[in-house]
Amino acid sequence: MQRRQFLKGAVITAGATGAATLAAPAIAQAKTDMAIVSTWPRDFPGLGISAQRLAARIGELTEGRINVTYFASGEKVGAFDVLDEVAAGNSQAYIGADYYWKGKHPAWAYFTAVPFGLTYAEIDAWMKYGGGQELHDEVAGGFGIKGFPCGNTGVQMGGWFNKEMESADDFKGLKMRIPGLGGDVLAKLGASPVALPGAQIYENLVSGAVDATEWVGPYNDYFMKFYEAAKYYYYPGMHEPGSQLHLGMNAEWWGGLSKNDQNIIIAACAEENAHQMAETNARNGEHLTKLITDHGVELREFNDDIYDAFYEAAQEVFEETRDHSDLAKKVHDSFAAFRDDIGGWMVAAEASYLRQRNRVTGVEL
Amino acid sequence: MQRRQFLKGAVITAGATGAATLAAPAIAQAKTDMAIVSTWPRDFPGLGISAQRLAARIGELTEGRINVTYFASGEKVGAFDVLDEVAAGNSQAYIGADYYWKGKHPAWAYFTAVPFGLTYAEIDAWMKYGGGQELHDEVAGGFGIKGFPCGNTGVQMGGWFNKEMESADDFKGLKMRIPGLGGDVLAKLGASPVALPGAQIYENLVSGAVDATEWVGPYNDYFMKFYEAAKYYYYPGMHEPGSQLHLGMNAEWWGGLSKNDQNIIIAACAEENAHQMAETNARNGEHLTKLITDHGVELREFNDDIYDAFYEAAQEVFEETRDHSDLAKKVHDSFAAFRDDIGGWMVAAEASYLRQRNRVTGVEL
Repeated sequence: MQRRQFLKGAVITAGATGAATLAAPAIAQAKTDMAIVSTWPRDFPGLGISAQRLAARIGELTEGRINVTYFASGEKVGAFDVLDEVAAGNSQAYIGADYYWKGKHPAWAYFTAVPFGLTYAEIDAWMKYGGGQELHDEVAGGFGIKGFPCGNTGVQMGGWFNKEMESADDFKGLKMRIPGLGGDVLAKLGASPVALPGAQIYENLVSGAVDATEWVGPYNDYFMKFYEAAKYYYYPGMHEPGSQLHLGMNAEWWGGLSKNDQNIIIAACAEENAHQMAETNARNGEHLTKLITDHGVELREFNDDIYDAFYEAAQEVFEETRDHSDLAKKVHDSFAAFRDDIGGWMVAAEASYLRQRNRVTGVEL
Repeated sequence: MQRRQFLKGAVITAGATGAATLAAPAIAQAKTDMAIVSTWPRDFPGLGISAQRLAARIGELTEGRINVTYFASGEKVGAFDVLDEVAAGNSQAYIGADYYWKGKHPAWAYFTAVPFGLTYAEIDAWMKYGGGQELHDEVAGGFGIKGFPCGNTGVQMGGWFNKEMESADDFKGLKMRIPGLGGDVLAKLGASPVALPGAQIYENLVSGAVDATEWVGPYNDYFMKFYEAAKYYYYPGMHEPGSQLHLGMNAEWWGGLSKNDQNIIIAACAEENAHQMAETNARNGEHLTKLITDHGVELREFNDDIYDAFYEAAQEVFEETRDHSDLAKKVHDSFAAFRDDIGGWMVAAEASYLRQRNRVTGVEL
């Protein structure tokens, strides 16, 4: 049977039953254009590929009712202009990291990642069961945006160093590429954080213009060849423990969609959120092994002394954030309370199990 | 504007453009009935609620093109009869735990959970990027089933004991409720594993007919009131480190669906897979705290000696599985190789970060 066919002027039988009758195309949903502008370069491994996959999926699941056109960073507007572009209604949605807007309001950062924040599983639980989505609606709503999580790149590595980091003092005077709140934390330890775009990090590290750098994780870092200039690869990173990405839509446009198209977008975002995490974890596992075995990278763990100093510095950073406004304080407090509640469980479950399993099966780490 | 309206004999304009034109309901997709039979009781916390949510979501996202009727365990067939029911075409799909079919083929167990197996994030990565879905297609295909992951309950706790477990010898002669491969492992340590349905565990524990029990995790265990009869709550469980659930469909029925309906089912499953994990983690965090603070439960960690003995016993269990058939060996080997590759990364990332973050923030564990 040819299941798909054009019905032109067909007589519609309502209430059809049975397994293979043709459904009445009774409800016509509005067709709409959706220009998506992204903060990622075209075909960028992990992040760019994920954004492109989501854009295509929304078109596919709605069978073109939502007519999606995707623009990588710079193809319509620059990466950091996508929020303004969508808020103004010039494009219908962006895909990117909401912490890029923390200059406009510091609460944005909590929905992507903050130092000593939530991991992938934790932030997903916070968004759905800890009030996170409602708080995102409040923060984003203030900018005319409605958004949903649509990707996550997990725990970031601590970074690449050309010496062993034995105490917090080793960060004094260190010139390190690390943007955002993580950089603010290191600055309080006496480091000089530098914000360099990805394309310029390698040359600066090789020339010695910077002493150290973080980037993402083994998969993305592998292709940056940092191992040629810095031998020690430190974990765990404190600065981005589960970077959650968003599809941020123009709220008025979102409100005009049919309930069905809204539901399909929500499902597509949830699907991609998990898909990107799965891809990142799979690739990171594979490339961490390659870095160590093929390129002689020395894996090192930050010690307790360094972590204590990181946290003390982070407290000062958070104090500045909380003091910004009632909304920033509300988001911080919700986030911190949820972390306290779920944190014990995650160690009893995930962390303790992974450590014991790896030990007995002989997996290193 | 009234976006939804009946189009009867309307003239269809193809290639409509602009933001709010009515889409041509040009492609009529077949309407079909989908009876879903489940292994979970109606409204069962976590598992049952999740299955019901997925069933409703498939109907909602397809706007009733897929006409879903959901049957909890016992409402149409018993929990353990759902595979046969769907394979025979009497119902179109089941929602349940595929390790229930390990008596029919031991490879089924790997797609739910096996001792020393994969966590939620790991098994999701294996399914999508490690060949797991293809292997599931092969195993399930042999029974006329096509399935997708649609839920996960994460790492299970090790169980409730009325004495401190200080060495592997403490398991000798212990009568413990623990079904499946986990029970097989404990039997090799000299324990007497018992398979009791949930409703009978509490009375057996109180009467002393069993000495110990595992169930799921803090959320589900809380309502079973095991803390009234056993004081020590051990972690981490080795037996089910990330129980993945499936929507298993009659493969012929699945093949007759439109591509669009197939895609929507895939997206709905992915959405629910993450949703159930988020709910479980959120509730477990909250209820672990309650168990400790409100009911004086003593949380204990299995020591290295016990874990070494668990693993040695598990090796024998796996040997029996691998010897079953080429397919069982292929699934085991894929699974084990993926675990070795991703395991180091997960500890460098998730486990190390969680431990350090909890330590510095003062979260217990």
